[in-house]
Amino acid sequence: MPDGNENENGEMVSPKHADDIFEEFKEHSVAEFFTKNKQMLGFSGKLRSLTTVIHEYVTNSLDACEEAGILPDLTVKITELPEEHMLVKVSDNGPGIPKSHIGRALGQMLSGTKFHRYMQQRGQQGIGATGCTMFAQLTSGKPIHVRSSTGNGMIYECNVSVNVKTNAPLISDVTEYEGDFRGLEVTAEFADVKYDRSEYSPLEYLKRTAIANPHAEIYFVDPAGKKVRFPRVSQMLPDRPHEVQPHPLGVEPHVLYEMMRISPARKVGSFLTSELARVTPSKVDELKVVMPDFDFDQPPQNITWNDARRLVNAFKKIKWVAPSADGLRSIGNEQIDVALRSLLKPEYLSVRSRPPKVYSGGVPFIVEAAIAYGGSAGKHTESGISTEIMRFANRSPLLFDAGGCAVAKAVRAVDWKRYEIRDFDNAPITVFVNFVSAFVPYTGAGKQSISSEPEVFDEIKFAVMDVARDVQRYLSGKVREERKEAKRKAIMRYIHQLAVDLPLLANTGTSEELEKKLTAVVFTRFKAEEAEENEEHKTREIMIEESESEAGETAENKIEFDEEDM
Amino acid sequence: MPDGNENENGEMVSPKHADDIFEEFKEHSVAEFFTKNKQMLGFSGKLRSLTTVIHEYVTNSLDACEEAGILPDLTVKITELPEEHMLVKVSDNGPGIPKSHIGRALGQMLSGTKFHRYMQQRGQQGIGATGCTMFAQLTSGKPIHVRSSTGNGMIYECNVSVNVKTNAPLISDVTEYEGDFRGLEVTAEFADVKYDRSEYSPLEYLKRTAIANPHAEIYFVDPAGKKVRFPRVSQMLPDRPHEVQPHPLGVEPHVLYEMMRISPARKVGSFLTSELARVTPSKVDELKVVMPDFDFDQPPQNITWNDARRLVNAFKKIKWVAPSADGLRSIGNEQIDVALRSLLKPEYLSVRSRPPKVYSGGVPFIVEAAIAYGGSAGKHTESGISTEIMRFANRSPLLFDAGGCAVAKAVRAVDWKRYEIRDFDNAPITVFVNFVSAFVPYTGAGKQSISSEPEVFDEIKFAVMDVARDVQRYLSGKVREERKEAKRKAIMRYIHQLAVDLPLLANTGTSEELEKKLTAVVFTRFKAEEAEENEEHKTREIMIEESESEAGETAENKIEFDEEDM
Repeated sequence: MPDGNENENGEMVSPKHADDIFEEFKEHSVAEFFTKNKQMLGFSGKLRSLTTVIHEYVTNSLDACEEAGILPDLTVKITELPEEHMLVKVSDNGPGIPKSHIGRALGQMLSGTKFHRYMQQRGQQGIGATGCTMFAQLTSGKPIHVRSSTGNGMIYECNVSVNVKTNAPLISDVTEYEGDFRGLEVTAEFADVKYDRSEYSPLEYLKRTAIANPHAEIYFVDPAGKKVRFPRVSQMLPDRPHEVQPHPLGVEPHVLYEMMRISPARKVGSFLTSELARVTPSKVDELKVVMPDFDFDQPPQNITWNDARRLVNAFKKIKWVAPSADGLRSIGNEQIDVALRSLLKPEYLSVRSRPPKVYSGGVPFIVEAAIAYGGSAGKHTESGISTEIMRFANRSPLLFDAGGCAVAKAVRAVDWKRYEIRDFDNAPITVFVNFVSAFVPYTGAGKQSISSEPEVFDEIKFAVMDVARDVQRYLSGKVREERKEAKRKAIMRYIHQLAVDLPLLANTGTSEELEKKLTAVVFTRFKAEEAEENEEHKTREIMIEESESEAGETAENKIEFDEEDM
Repeated sequence: MPDGNENENGEMVSPKHADDIFEEFKEHSVAEFFTKNKQMLGFSGKLRSLTTVIHEYVTNSLDACEEAGILPDLTVKITELPEEHMLVKVSDNGPGIPKSHIGRALGQMLSGTKFHRYMQQRGQQGIGATGCTMFAQLTSGKPIHVRSSTGNGMIYECNVSVNVKTNAPLISDVTEYEGDFRGLEVTAEFADVKYDRSEYSPLEYLKRTAIANPHAEIYFVDPAGKKVRFPRVSQMLPDRPHEVQPHPLGVEPHVLYEMMRISPARKVGSFLTSELARVTPSKVDELKVVMPDFDFDQPPQNITWNDARRLVNAFKKIKWVAPSADGLRSIGNEQIDVALRSLLKPEYLSVRSRPPKVYSGGVPFIVEAAIAYGGSAGKHTESGISTEIMRFANRSPLLFDAGGCAVAKAVRAVDWKRYEIRDFDNAPITVFVNFVSAFVPYTGAGKQSISSEPEVFDEIKFAVMDVARDVQRYLSGKVREERKEAKRKAIMRYIHQLAVDLPLLANTGTSEELEKKLTAVVFTRFKAEEAEENEEHKTREIMIEESESEAGETAENKIEFDEEDM
């Protein structure tokens, strides 16, 4: 072992002892950790930080309303303050937070009701709203202000901040008074944020939230004072989220181990039938055949991790009924339809909520897809229209990190030319995809992009192809109609001219009479052509590539001819 | 307020009261949080998870060796176990961990020595190694095994795991015995990982680590038993990291506030001069002019967040000496040169460690860039050679999330055609960039990509352009030489033929004599051309676009002529 080494300045350096190095060893709070790593919570970049704040508050409001069974009314207001500070106020008509829980709900990280439950909700971790409180105090130095009532006639107001060193909530300036209000209103001041109207903005976030939550009424006031209302277009309340039991093919050893450790069941066998989905006593018998040396009568609390792993492996060796999709709460065809129609007023819209599928063996999910064509669909900018891909996970818009997302990849993997979309990037279309699951396989830390698990990728692609086929049918019908119409118009003008000229030349007959006859001839011919075309239609759909470019040319020629003639 | 709403099944749903919802409110440990959000720690995807494990252990070993002043010897071994499990063993000759600290260092999140210090190290958060312990127990159900000695003749071995519910370390199977060893050896078993030899693999990670740490000896055994040694190519130990004081233009209000709250100083004035960089008593006088109503004699502990913010704003109104780059430990030209040469054996190499710059007003950073051309530079695959961009932050390789990284963006923003690299994506080059700073502005949560702050982006681009210019000079010299050589060869063959034919035709003289004379004529002409060419050289470098395509054609013609003549 060398006693010393030369450093960059040529000096001898003698090794420092471990005891000296570890002298400074300390423990830190999770709030302190996220103060240093606020990018992990979505606070990176001024615009993204502001959109993250809106996301956290809106998500919490929608979740709370859903859980309470209330049609949500949200108001989001962003005000510009001096020195580039922004004041964000979000209020809802939800259940409110009981005063004894306000500190922990908004001023303590990793506190919450949702952490443990195996169910589909937007937020899951009891960290978002407290993250906003922390970000407010980090950037503006101010606590957030809260107004809450559970609808009991008393309104509670206070300031909340986080003691970063201890992750304890700090509550101050408490007032309580009578009043008729139910819900939560949070006001927070931030610096290091900025507002714009880009595709990453709070406005876009709220627009997409409105699309995926047609049962919500959202009212937004931007820093310029501009008011935008996203009206409730459906009175239908989504089902309340409920916990679902994990399916044997979707449970990881550590989850199973943890479940068994705290289970009230007295035997492994009864634990399995009562706490996992699709496990019947006869399935337990099948498992006994696969694991003859394993004691299914022992208490589940005695199980080791290795036993849990052996069980998970055994699960894979027998056949199961697919997991139920009961716990999955999709938006539904009708709701997506009404939402997209009301917002995009498209020329054509196709929506498809597909049947549940399973990824990773046992995690059920649903993909809902839609394509809106024309109208306000697509991104409309000064330089023209381009395609818009709207990604959602459990109705929450995903605005960032599109690059690695299975949705963006699957949409791009579609051979759009086959669906009459020649220039996909610049088409007047909005592609909508909502991924529904109690376990969204997020890629990376930002929770803004979905991992390309093979089943997930394929299902998204198939769903988009489904609606793309409808669009193709619409567009090729449209092209056909346009072509026919152009042809018809051209011939009719020609007929009209002929009907005027011929009687003059021939010095006999009337132009009216001739026009009528010629028209009849042309219409008969047209009918025949149409019948023929319909016959060809199937072939055309498959060989769309060649036939379409020809058709396009013909149609264009006709239109030119039209104009010369006018 | 409605008393109820209809749900999807048409049933009336009465609102649930907040008290019922918050009944389930619980607190959770940070370990539990990261169990559910392991992707935040880099555990997403089987390959990335394995590379993350190697990254965490190697980073800790290198940091520990640097702090202790020891030239690091690392051994990394990955073994495949049944059922797709992998055993990872990383050992070093570092200072070891004292036995009283092993549990906290490897089995408790947010424990560590480095969290608070304002200095440049690879790891910073006391979370990486414990994250690996957690990931091991989540996937394989096994604790990690540790062997450690501080070099005192006693070796300590134990198993370590994390109690996820409480974030407390669990130590078991302790043995202690005499032996001659100093360092740390960690053995951990994982499932849900995979090994390959791609650009995201542990092998690539170690290769790049070797390049950025020429003072380290790294020995790697892959699951197939293949051994790779990255030898130490420099005996020079990097300087020990040391804490640096924040510069007034680089300090955020919340950091200043926190520093003042715990400062031993008795007056704000003396706090500023003693705990911030570049603050002299005369600078404090200047601040007093900017903030006439502020009491610089009050105790810093009395300060409010708002005072801290006012101070930070005042800092921006006076002129400061730029922050010192003393705390920045770059790799250095020589070290990068020796490392890249030994590994890539390039035909040409240019390295540039640029002078320190500042971003965001007061955070100093250094960019080091290199381009290796030819030899083993570039990515060599079955389908050919393509360009390789190696990104580093403080000597740590960044393998993932290249898309949004300032390094990748800046490298691509270079107009490579101007530097004789016509097809950048398929050039036999490796572009090396190391970003050095106590505060790397990471984008997103993964800490694998650097944010495109304007100063950062520009400086990276300039650094790469610097070395690209050298490459251009080399390549255009090479093209010129090749062209000249081709021309010379062609003429010489022509001369030879002429020298044989002419005497025959003329029936006088000898071919030898004639060849000598012709050669002399040609060489005189060549010298003149060369002089002329050198004159033109500067112009050519600027107008490289046009002149080069012509030159390319000419050279090619000559070579064709050559072959016809042979």
